[in-house]
Amino acid sequence: MSSPQPSALAPAPVALTDLLRRYRAVRQQTADLCRPLLPEDTVVQPMIDVSPPKWHLAHTTWFFETFLLKEYQPDYAVFHPDYAFLFNSYYNSLGSRVNRADRGTLSRPPLQDVYDYRAHVDAHMLTLLDALAGAEAALPAAFAELFELGLQHEQQHQELLVTDIKYILSTSPLAPAYLPADGQQARAAALPPVSWLPVPGGIHRIGYEGEGFCFDNEQAPHEVYVADFTLQNRLVTNADYLEFMAGGGYQDFRYWLGEGWDLAQQQQWEAPLYWTQKDGRWYRFTHHGLQPLNLAAPVTHVSFYEADAYAHWAGARLLTEQEWEIAARHFGAQPAGTFLESRRFDPQPLPVPAAPDQCHQLLGDVWEWTYSAYHPYPGYLRAAGALGEYNGKFMLNQLVLRGGSCATPASHIRPTYRNFFHADKRWQFTGIRLAR
Amino acid sequence: MSSPQPSALAPAPVALTDLLRRYRAVRQQTADLCRPLLPEDTVVQPMIDVSPPKWHLAHTTWFFETFLLKEYQPDYAVFHPDYAFLFNSYYNSLGSRVNRADRGTLSRPPLQDVYDYRAHVDAHMLTLLDALAGAEAALPAAFAELFELGLQHEQQHQELLVTDIKYILSTSPLAPAYLPADGQQARAAALPPVSWLPVPGGIHRIGYEGEGFCFDNEQAPHEVYVADFTLQNRLVTNADYLEFMAGGGYQDFRYWLGEGWDLAQQQQWEAPLYWTQKDGRWYRFTHHGLQPLNLAAPVTHVSFYEADAYAHWAGARLLTEQEWEIAARHFGAQPAGTFLESRRFDPQPLPVPAAPDQCHQLLGDVWEWTYSAYHPYPGYLRAAGALGEYNGKFMLNQLVLRGGSCATPASHIRPTYRNFFHADKRWQFTGIRLAR
Amino acid sequence: MSSPQPSALAPAPVALTDLLRRYRAVRQQTADLCRPLLPEDTVVQPMIDVSPPKWHLAHTTWFFETFLLKEYQPDYAVFHPDYAFLFNSYYNSLGSRVNRADRGTLSRPPLQDVYDYRAHVDAHMLTLLDALAGAEAALPAAFAELFELGLQHEQQHQELLVTDIKYILSTSPLAPAYLPADGQQARAAALPPVSWLPVPGGIHRIGYEGEGFCFDNEQAPHEVYVADFTLQNRLVTNADYLEFMAGGGYQDFRYWLGEGWDLAQQQQWEAPLYWTQKDGRWYRFTHHGLQPLNLAAPVTHVSFYEADAYAHWAGARLLTEQEWEIAARHFGAQPAGTFLESRRFDPQPLPVPAAPDQCHQLLGDVWEWTYSAYHPYPGYLRAAGALGEYNGKFMLNQLVLRGGSCATPASHIRPTYRNFFHADKRWQFTGIRLAR
Amino acid sequence: MSSPQPSALAPAPVALTDLLRRYRAVRQQTADLCRPLLPEDTVVQPMIDVSPPKWHLAHTTWFFETFLLKEYQPDYAVFHPDYAFLFNSYYNSLGSRVNRADRGTLSRPPLQDVYDYRAHVDAHMLTLLDALAGAEAALPAAFAELFELGLQHEQQHQELLVTDIKYILSTSPLAPAYLPADGQQARAAALPPVSWLPVPGGIHRIGYEGEGFCFDNEQAPHEVYVADFTLQNRLVTNADYLEFMAGGGYQDFRYWLGEGWDLAQQQQWEAPLYWTQKDGRWYRFTHHGLQPLNLAAPVTHVSFYEADAYAHWAGARLLTEQEWEIAARHFGAQPAGTFLESRRFDPQPLPVPAAPDQCHQLLGDVWEWTYSAYHPYPGYLRAAGALGEYNGKFMLNQLVLRGGSCATPASHIRPTYRNFFHADKRWQFTGIRLAR
Repeated sequence: MSSPQPSALAPAPVALTDLLRRYRAVRQQTADLCRPLLPEDTVVQPMIDVSPPKWHLAHTTWFFETFLLKEYQPDYAVFHPDYAFLFNSYYNSLGSRVNRADRGTLSRPPLQDVYDYRAHVDAHMLTLLDALAGAEAALPAAFAELFELGLQHEQQHQELLVTDIKYILSTSPLAPAYLPADGQQARAAALPPVSWLPVPGGIHRIGYEGEGFCFDNEQAPHEVYVADFTLQNRLVTNADYLEFMAGGGYQDFRYWLGEGWDLAQQQQWEAPLYWTQKDGRWYRFTHHGLQPLNLAAPVTHVSFYEADAYAHWAGARLLTEQEWEIAARHFGAQPAGTFLESRRFDPQPLPVPAAPDQCHQLLGDVWEWTYSAYHPYPGYLRAAGALGEYNGKFMLNQLVLRGGSCATPASHIRPTYRNFFHADKRWQFTGIRLAR
Repeated sequence: MSSPQPSALAPAPVALTDLLRRYRAVRQQTADLCRPLLPEDTVVQPMIDVSPPKWHLAHTTWFFETFLLKEYQPDYAVFHPDYAFLFNSYYNSLGSRVNRADRGTLSRPPLQDVYDYRAHVDAHMLTLLDALAGAEAALPAAFAELFELGLQHEQQHQELLVTDIKYILSTSPLAPAYLPADGQQARAAALPPVSWLPVPGGIHRIGYEGEGFCFDNEQAPHEVYVADFTLQNRLVTNADYLEFMAGGGYQDFRYWLGEGWDLAQQQQWEAPLYWTQKDGRWYRFTHHGLQPLNLAAPVTHVSFYEADAYAHWAGARLLTEQEWEIAARHFGAQPAGTFLESRRFDPQPLPVPAAPDQCHQLLGDVWEWTYSAYHPYPGYLRAAGALGEYNGKFMLNQLVLRGGSCATPASHIRPTYRNFFHADKRWQFTGIRLAR
Repeated sequence: MSSPQPSALAPAPVALTDLLRRYRAVRQQTADLCRPLLPEDTVVQPMIDVSPPKWHLAHTTWFFETFLLKEYQPDYAVFHPDYAFLFNSYYNSLGSRVNRADRGTLSRPPLQDVYDYRAHVDAHMLTLLDALAGAEAALPAAFAELFELGLQHEQQHQELLVTDIKYILSTSPLAPAYLPADGQQARAAALPPVSWLPVPGGIHRIGYEGEGFCFDNEQAPHEVYVADFTLQNRLVTNADYLEFMAGGGYQDFRYWLGEGWDLAQQQQWEAPLYWTQKDGRWYRFTHHGLQPLNLAAPVTHVSFYEADAYAHWAGARLLTEQEWEIAARHFGAQPAGTFLESRRFDPQPLPVPAAPDQCHQLLGDVWEWTYSAYHPYPGYLRAAGALGEYNGKFMLNQLVLRGGSCATPASHIRPTYRNFFHADKRWQFTGIRLAR
Repeated sequence: MSSPQPSALAPAPVALTDLLRRYRAVRQQTADLCRPLLPEDTVVQPMIDVSPPKWHLAHTTWFFETFLLKEYQPDYAVFHPDYAFLFNSYYNSLGSRVNRADRGTLSRPPLQDVYDYRAHVDAHMLTLLDALAGAEAALPAAFAELFELGLQHEQQHQELLVTDIKYILSTSPLAPAYLPADGQQARAAALPPVSWLPVPGGIHRIGYEGEGFCFDNEQAPHEVYVADFTLQNRLVTNADYLEFMAGGGYQDFRYWLGEGWDLAQQQQWEAPLYWTQKDGRWYRFTHHGLQPLNLAAPVTHVSFYEADAYAHWAGARLLTEQEWEIAARHFGAQPAGTFLESRRFDPQPLPVPAAPDQCHQLLGDVWEWTYSAYHPYPGYLRAAGALGEYNGKFMLNQLVLRGGSCATPASHIRPTYRNFFHADKRWQFTGIRLAR
């Protein structure tokens, strides 16, 4: 996503101990993700989409300080008066901020000060939670909603941390590993057979309708009509993609959208991001350094332009986001596991044998590019105040991605979740599924 | 549109005399549009979206030469071997071409040579039509289809000529008139009352299904589901828009999409394109020079960003393209007249009194921005060969506009026609209709 | 030159008939240079350094209107109130102006209006001259100085017209000829032998000291010290330059200044501007269309970077401007003839045999790049008022060129004249002479 | 300087212990300069001219490894095979390298690895020195020359480290101090009286002629002629410069060179770099954080454009480099002290009273902009091989600065030393002295 997104629904009252436990767990998880980094790694911004990890650590903290402590703790003193300027992401409502492209020019405050900032805000947050929960049977609804959003927001940044760290380390010719390799990267895996699975059309209901949290862009739930369609039972693999490359996919403009072709020429794209060839063999840069390409694993780090060109080449097309959500429900898709926790930031091959009439890898492998613009759902309303800038203002010229990736927090993996990026982006775990 | 678009359906056999007459009429119309220009006016390109009129005159001719004469007339000798390079617009299939941004740097060939080129191709086209029609009962289907497309393509460029000429003349502080003013520009007009008209939702069929010509992007016809909605009975007027401006519409980011706000700041937008203030009064640059603002006329020359910001400010929204097409059918919209022929390139106020339960100005006034991305319809297929580049490769990051404008050829004004532009474009006759 | 330059010395009183004759001749010469052009040619600006011929025609007229008619004719009514904005070149003192890069976007006023402007100003100028000369024995000194400057300024623009026209026509693949070829372009010519001629060093005096007109940047005259040096008796020829090319001159960074090398790589320079290869043979675009390369003619249309790289490759160096002026006096250099009048805009080979101890081609062939920055001479003073912007503000980051070219008005060819351009410019008639 | 510069003269034989001592001292000095930094500070590159301190630490080490160890130690194994790519600055002769603008995107290798690199190279260098010195009575001349150049090169980077660190820390609104303030910053100081001191003209000899080391650009020594001139006895102070600002210096184009005026408008310059106004009082960012402006201290961090505009405003001019060197010898200028060692990176006011007929602050206060292009001296020859890229390729479009600053190593402060920068640069300690 380009941005985190606000809650539309206040969660039901929960026990204080649960809140404290979740708060601590989410905050700890962010710090844990940064632990393998050196201070030097936390400062740089090798492209505009990537934020320095130090900035992520501070910005997620700023969110709690700005929206909760400053609002609900009467005599709260900010940790530092300049941090509101330094760590605001894009909220015009909240004043001026560092130009996004300049986040990587700031060496100060140092990393340790940011950790101190986190500790300061955490201490006050825990005190505040205690005080609010003690005063009433449940937290005030508005507070509870913002608190939930703060946690969800921080989890969104955890995924960005994972992908930004990968990009940062990739820029060095030293190909440093974020984590030691576990020895499983290079194993060959059999390719499961491809099949085309039918999904019946008609009027379907999409959008979030459950009890729990969702982002405002998943609402309002509404009816859509789609015709019958079929989709592939698995994601496009690295082996599939090598065929596209061998077949001249990057050399033939007829497969490409015009803007994509121009960009591919200008950037001299010849393979997905992070691929490199040595002695006639393909490797990928991963969180475990440079690794041989696993042919059976899903292809990832492709732009929408490449996904669409691949589909043209294959005589197929991408799904729309409506079709994807209908299919995910139709096949009862289940997430693959807990990724952030396991630190396996690499899409895995489909286990073989795979049930032939089952649709695999819908949730938690790679974000699947859909051919749907990221626009508001019918009945969508921007929130008032600063949170109205959370989602709504990005609803143009981006495409919806569905399904969650191996870097997505488990609680963010659900059939209605709408991620969104511009068509040229490649540094997220983005992949391809074909439809007809 | 950014580009002309190919026929998907071969037209039914028609009489040769009709073909000859139509060919002559369309070709003549293009030349007539350029007649008020000086040679100097036909060369310049004051912004990348605008092509020099000389280029339009030649490119439409190149289309007939390339797709028809070179294919169907066995011993056809091209008028000049370099013209394929000079006047190809964007067809990669047909070799290299002048960079689009450099069209305005070429003084040669001179205008007269381009008219000679037109005469050369016209003579050969008429001979070829004669020969082909004489040989059989009807034209060969493939030829007939390309011939039709050539005419439709030239008509699309006629609208671009009208808007490009306006832009070219507007860049001079002399504010030269393309045509003499007819004295009607400044008359005040009463504003018809606004009402909100309901349209019933449900499953509707959209897309072109008739016998005649349509572009491939209007197909395949298909079902869509929409909820009940209401729309305004008339377009947003200049008077309405002045209220938005007076209400701080250009100063408050909360009404705007993020990319739109950044652009508006950078370009210092404070009013629609072509508006200027003198002595406290607003004027617009028109084909008749600088004219006082007609308050009752529809606002035009606004970007999608401005249209969307206006809708937010007004507590409403824009239509989707599906809603627009359903409404146009629901209200039995009829085009307002023949514009190119009448040379009234200025959206006119709604006559007063206007029937209160009628939906006005749907066809032929201004292109109405919809909040729908220009994506392929289900079942859309790109044509093989060079014509596959006509439409399909532009289907990303643009928005659909509906309804036709006062500069649109009458035969291009129909409820299924999909025009498309990037959200920032303002030099077409683009306007706003509100929905809820 | 990037700019015209003001007179520092008032000319001596002259007869009115001489003034009228000179005024008419200079003004006529400008119009004559544009006569072979079509209106289309007079509008475009294919790169920022090139101004549309229509602009030159108007700007030189604006100079007389602004600095003479508005100042000295009491009730003078400007031809058009917007022309001061449209045709000011760079005088901040005189208000805002069209951005230089946008001169080619203006189709209006049309060419005919500019000729009418010229006629209007000429009529008033002749009347004014008459009146002023009649009133006194001689023209007022300040007026006479400005009048002289107006003529010199217009002559500087005549050279720019010649080189801008060449560039404008060169951008078309049609390679149109400005003038018919005279059949002499392709003749082979023998190469005169090269020799190195010594010039004694010591203290020399440079700068203008005569009675006639000079530009302020030629003053004050002053002493300089140079060591003994030698220079080549002729300019570097196309044949010489082909050896540099064949010897890898464009492929070996060691010959190049850093900024030059980067630019040459980025622009993919492989030969001088206007050179093109067909079927293994080199051609140059000239005012007479595409012509075979004349091996014996001086190489021209090279940047300073290329000139300096050539010198390095040849084991030599370029002259300083002091050395050049000292050498020109030492050898009693004489201009080669009247170029603008003869319309021979092509440097000619040195006649063979050439006197071996004579230094050839010093004046009127090509502008010779010197390795001297264009800085003020000791004692240089900027004029007060708008004319202070004529020369002084350009005295940085440009290099001095000496000698005049085949496109320079004869009266501008003198040993003290300082022309100046940025090191990357190639569209003037610039060439190379070696020193040691 | 934009670049370090090679030795032209081999130093005389010296004792091994002296070499070892100097090597250790210079290398230690570089590390000492970085000691107050955090790892985060050593990575960023907030503008293209600034290099990350980590890069300086590695690049100076790479110089010894590349030019000495790889050449003279037969079986030397490089510390890391990728470092040649990572830490080459601009030597085309030595292969490809990181784009200069991307130095700040590289978090790896970490700072500690760079210190290990330094230790590795230092150990090998000391062994090599020992071996070479033991084998012969003196070091081989070519080695000795390169060794000397390596030390001089590293000292040049020490000054860049000082100024780059200042810029890096300045980008944070936190205004962090590199070193604690010593309490002397804010003290007021009396302004010594200004006087104009005459220097007799005539033929003078300039350029380096001593026994010790100099850079190749200081040679060959040669005669120049200058007229009599006068210069001010002290540098322009902050108080002087405030008068220029108050007098509209930044608002009146007439004082400025054209390119300078355009840049100043675009960048919105209103004061020297690092100046900021709070509550009506001026402060400067320094190595000791934000400090009140010391009115009596020399103005610094001004571009050539500002220096030249100031001189115009003051009715004076800048010196040429020839005049400067002649004046420095005429007045027997002596350096002010050892700056790098004392860590007083702030130009100090002239002690009062100052001898009225003495010329002050010529050496070691600020680099004085001269109005002389950085061109080769007569007889200058580029070295063969990679070292030929050290100086010669930068000799265009830059200006010479003279005198050394408070951040210059003492051994680099001499009357013949030619520093050079583009006219727009402001992050070095650059200042102004007036002449007439």
